[in-house]
Amino acid sequence: MNIKSYMNDLGKNAKKASNQLTAASTDKKNRFLYRLSELLVKHTEDIVKANLLDLNEAKKNSLDNAFIDRLTLNKKNILAMTEGLIQIANLEDPIGSISSLKPRPSGIQVGKMRVPLGVIGMIYESRPNVTIDAAGLAIKSGNAIILRGGSESINSNNFLATLIKQALITVDLSEHAVQIIDNTDRAAVGELITMRDYVDVIIPRGGKELIKRISDEATIPVIKHLDGNCHIYVDAEADLNKAIEIVDNAKTQRFGTCNTLESLVVHNTIADNFLKKLHDVLKKKKVELRGCQETLKIVKDATIASEDDFYEEYLGPILSCKVVTSLDEAINHINYYSSAHTEAIITNNYENSMRFLREIDSSSVMVNASTRFADGFEYGLGAEIGISTDKFHARGPVGLEGLTSEKYIVIGNGQIRK
Amino acid sequence: MNIKSYMNDLGKNAKKASNQLTAASTDKKNRFLYRLSELLVKHTEDIVKANLLDLNEAKKNSLDNAFIDRLTLNKKNILAMTEGLIQIANLEDPIGSISSLKPRPSGIQVGKMRVPLGVIGMIYESRPNVTIDAAGLAIKSGNAIILRGGSESINSNNFLATLIKQALITVDLSEHAVQIIDNTDRAAVGELITMRDYVDVIIPRGGKELIKRISDEATIPVIKHLDGNCHIYVDAEADLNKAIEIVDNAKTQRFGTCNTLESLVVHNTIADNFLKKLHDVLKKKKVELRGCQETLKIVKDATIASEDDFYEEYLGPILSCKVVTSLDEAINHINYYSSAHTEAIITNNYENSMRFLREIDSSSVMVNASTRFADGFEYGLGAEIGISTDKFHARGPVGLEGLTSEKYIVIGNGQIRK
Repeated sequence: MNIKSYMNDLGKNAKKASNQLTAASTDKKNRFLYRLSELLVKHTEDIVKANLLDLNEAKKNSLDNAFIDRLTLNKKNILAMTEGLIQIANLEDPIGSISSLKPRPSGIQVGKMRVPLGVIGMIYESRPNVTIDAAGLAIKSGNAIILRGGSESINSNNFLATLIKQALITVDLSEHAVQIIDNTDRAAVGELITMRDYVDVIIPRGGKELIKRISDEATIPVIKHLDGNCHIYVDAEADLNKAIEIVDNAKTQRFGTCNTLESLVVHNTIADNFLKKLHDVLKKKKVELRGCQETLKIVKDATIASEDDFYEEYLGPILSCKVVTSLDEAINHINYYSSAHTEAIITNNYENSMRFLREIDSSSVMVNASTRFADGFEYGLGAEIGISTDKFHARGPVGLEGLTSEKYIVIGNGQIRK
Repeated sequence: MNIKSYMNDLGKNAKKASNQLTAASTDKKNRFLYRLSELLVKHTEDIVKANLLDLNEAKKNSLDNAFIDRLTLNKKNILAMTEGLIQIANLEDPIGSISSLKPRPSGIQVGKMRVPLGVIGMIYESRPNVTIDAAGLAIKSGNAIILRGGSESINSNNFLATLIKQALITVDLSEHAVQIIDNTDRAAVGELITMRDYVDVIIPRGGKELIKRISDEATIPVIKHLDGNCHIYVDAEADLNKAIEIVDNAKTQRFGTCNTLESLVVHNTIADNFLKKLHDVLKKKKVELRGCQETLKIVKDATIASEDDFYEEYLGPILSCKVVTSLDEAINHINYYSSAHTEAIITNNYENSMRFLREIDSSSVMVNASTRFADGFEYGLGAEIGISTDKFHARGPVGLEGLTSEKYIVIGNGQIRK
């Protein structure tokens, strides 16, 4: 069968399943989540066995350790997957909730009802745990989903697909509510991101190249996350001890995450004192400082930052630094260079904190807290399917609500328009 | 100057203005609206004079009466424009409002703040009153806007642009917050809908062809409204007198609006009684009935509906009709053929009304009310910039809130992630 008609069938089936899911009760959706978590426990050894096929192939192809780490399924992370499903079951069902039903002068009542988006297309790298997360979030939010994982995880995903199907059938949901593309042909992605009749939103997760390609080529709305060039601005009125602790945490707790601090902005009145103290802390952790001319005057072994440095998401032990003379300059600098992911201000000045919150144009804006908190679990969403750096539809960590929309409802008793 | 660099300058200036608008106070935005409404009153004669140039040209080109009607500015509709601006000033400012700020176990508080989208690009036909509406809604929602009206209204729009600019400058807002493309070259549209660095959302208003072209070619999210193939389902347990009154109103109050009824779905147990009565009413208003085989058995002078009829937005005195044997069949029929604009059920059965509300996948779903109510003013939005038939971001009438997004805010006092 050719890819076009294979994908077309997947799309048609997903659309049909999504109509059924819109009407599915919370109880039924939760029973699916519990059933799937039971199956994961019961079949832990089989999952590990299927995963081993992928791991052997990956090792044969000399894929690096970080890659193998993300690909690996073991008792520990399978348990984490089951716990994730239970957590999703415990979350409030967003579907069907009605907000602000208000009477209008005509006599009708107008409100909004939360509804699923319909069909989600998700494209992600070889992290088979995402398969289970995404299936759980999609079903709980009433959406059908078509999953396309990295080709290196095909055996793991195909086996997980059989468990998902079994759980769907047990609770009498359509087996097409979650479909995994079992074809590693890249053309399948091209089809998925242009099937406007069947797919309502595309969620890519992975490297910049993948996300850029999908954004450029998709004719369906994309919830995307490009990069996390996160800033902290240390204000003139910051508590410098807190500032040191927060900057240290944001930069060094984990180097490779999207909410890691990449660029520091410091007010000149406290720059000398603060940067010297900070440098002592960062030197021990082998973090290199790349700064503007003012930074270099204060920290002797800092190197000069190029224009590119201020745009860079290092994902490693490097920090760029800019000394500014005002809050306005800080806000302008951040809005200009940031990737609109997460930025924080450290200050005890009320007005500065309020202006920063309002005027910084990023998906998460923080006061006196580490950028590392930008995360669905930390925000209480229970789980996240990704972090959106877009402004449209969903911004920041995307949990159940980001996978829904609202429609208008009108309750009348015979009203006609005059 | 070539179009590309002309549009690029507009985009850059809009982006800069939008940063200023994000921080603008409600008072300042309202003063702009009042000032502009004063200028419209003061310059009514000049507006009419500028409009006359467009009208003369339109008459010379033998454009039809409906076109000329939409193009005309006179004392009456200029007054309506000023009243529209005052109404927008009276609406609550959505920007900066913070919802559900909640403490998390880590000690941070997490909430959402409503923020502008940034820069809106709007493309519309030759209706110069839209220029004022759109400028008002954009400024109140904190967005910069680039307007491209139909080329036949260029003189009217250029004059209105001078008034808008004057009002912006008076209240110390950037003169680039509202920019009107004074170039009638169609290539300007092509640039506008692909300037991803400067424009955050495109709103097209006009004929199907225009909207289709823009949706196909835009690389920026589009809030669009394709067509309004609206349905009413008359349930077995409907109050038939109310049903007649509502169907009559929805079909015949105005034939040419997007919330006009185009297709009727009737339960077979009441079809005979209901359709005969309805036919008596519609015959007097010269509305043609095109129905399924069952319809034809009941209404002798109905004609047979083709498959195309069930997809059709007639915008005229024709109504398609389908007799069904169950609520399920009705829901499936409607979800299959409708354009996801507005659908209503007429029933006294509680469970049927609830199922219809939940399972119909349209931007407005109604019980016992005329589809004609699907409208920003009737819903209490105060004004609308369009009606979205998309599921993503905004569904249904789009008022101020549809022109905004929410970002996460985090309030801490020194928290770091463990």
